[in-house]
Amino acid sequence: MSTLVVIGTGLIGASFALAAKRAQLVQTVIGLDVDESVLVEAKKLGVIDHMNEGTQLPDLVCVAVPTHAIAESVNDAQRKYGSNVPIFDTGSVKVPVIEAFESVPPNFVPCHPIAGSDRQGPAAADADLFQDRAVIVTPLENTDASAAAVIENAWSSIGARVIRQTPWEHDDDMAMVSHLPHLVAFALVELLANSEVRLSDRIGDGFRDMTRIAGSDPTIWQQILTDNAGRVRKKLDELLRVLETIQNAAQNDPEELQRILTGISDYRKRLDG
Amino acid sequence: MSTLVVIGTGLIGASFALAAKRAQLVQTVIGLDVDESVLVEAKKLGVIDHMNEGTQLPDLVCVAVPTHAIAESVNDAQRKYGSNVPIFDTGSVKVPVIEAFESVPPNFVPCHPIAGSDRQGPAAADADLFQDRAVIVTPLENTDASAAAVIENAWSSIGARVIRQTPWEHDDDMAMVSHLPHLVAFALVELLANSEVRLSDRIGDGFRDMTRIAGSDPTIWQQILTDNAGRVRKKLDELLRVLETIQNAAQNDPEELQRILTGISDYRKRLDG
Repeated sequence: MSTLVVIGTGLIGASFALAAKRAQLVQTVIGLDVDESVLVEAKKLGVIDHMNEGTQLPDLVCVAVPTHAIAESVNDAQRKYGSNVPIFDTGSVKVPVIEAFESVPPNFVPCHPIAGSDRQGPAAADADLFQDRAVIVTPLENTDASAAAVIENAWSSIGARVIRQTPWEHDDDMAMVSHLPHLVAFALVELLANSEVRLSDRIGDGFRDMTRIAGSDPTIWQQILTDNAGRVRKKLDELLRVLETIQNAAQNDPEELQRILTGISDYRKRLDG
Repeated sequence: MSTLVVIGTGLIGASFALAAKRAQLVQTVIGLDVDESVLVEAKKLGVIDHMNEGTQLPDLVCVAVPTHAIAESVNDAQRKYGSNVPIFDTGSVKVPVIEAFESVPPNFVPCHPIAGSDRQGPAAADADLFQDRAVIVTPLENTDASAAAVIENAWSSIGARVIRQTPWEHDDDMAMVSHLPHLVAFALVELLANSEVRLSDRIGDGFRDMTRIAGSDPTIWQQILTDNAGRVRKKLDELLRVLETIQNAAQNDPEELQRILTGISDYRKRLDG
């Protein structure tokens, strides 16, 4: 394999480029970005080799653009490179990305690397970003098996752990382990901000740890919470039922509360162990 | 000042004893505990000097027992030492403690040091536990001013920052910054535990940070959530309204969501800054 095209040379695309080169998965990286200044920066930093395409077909295309722009970028790449070059994306939701296509090209393999940073842009790129991280790969029924194999191999070769799921499973699971927790952290901070008195002198490590993710990039989270709103709604309703169960036990049944909290505390400790 | 009586020689009482001695606030510490083995351990560890009372009146009494037992312990101390020896407690809720008295003795000064550990008992005692930590002191209208002064001075001399509030303010604020966040963390972990699939391989630092406090001691939290159930209920209802506002924006109004999340993210960053 020799040439990688990265569409979107921000943190994720640039990190993939660095990792792919270091792993000798590719020799040449061509970058494309709607933001010319980001592209120039990526070139200056040596993250990409060229800012425009040669005449040769690439061997792999990485689409690392915001979720709303993925289908269009994939379709563009498809038109330019034909239907034999494997293309993958890195979007944090999968169902809305897939639903944005009229028909999903068989050489497109939807992916989501579970990795990130609170810094943005090619200057924050890190060849180790995906090392030992899970990457969820969600091929569809019509996805070309050899394209999927090429892309899973690419992720493995840069140190990521490939987990295969359906796009629906992926979005359900992310709603549970990431999107709902972010929503809750945002809400706790909003509630604190709305409090009449200044409480920050009384905030302990618990509250700080619990709401750290509420400092995340609002634009990224606006997209994720919008994209996956239906599944987050469902998980939120489940959470509300659990909150009511625990709170009702606190109000009416101390022994039941003890039983519930003991189970939770044991489960949580096992998560770290 | 020369003699301190500590009723309840667990983590908090034992830590106060160590700190008070190191600060030369007291020369002698007498320990009392319903659990003989805890008392013997405290004596062995040198946390207390004596396991029984002499004939002399103490200068200060620290009641560091579970919240349900505080009023009774204070009344006992009152009967033994009279109404001139300042007595304070260390309970994490204040209104239920006060309401447990038929009448609150003027020499009793309700306190809550915002400090703790996930370890328990006198072996976990730490003379630095209260260093630079807030201690909320909640004197009542009939509280003796000189008793309050003695106790606030004691906390200051061991390095704690004294904040004065009413018991009602204290319990409201703790519901917001501590009890509700714990409830939510417990609920998130319960929801994860109820999930059909094993998701722990996909849990990132965000979820871990957010639910660390769900591993807290279930017995302590059963008491706190029961004691302060009314105020936690009120804060929970406020949180549910905020959650609905954000989730509705995610479903119906992306621009409003962006505005909300930007405000929250900025506020959260300032909390650390």
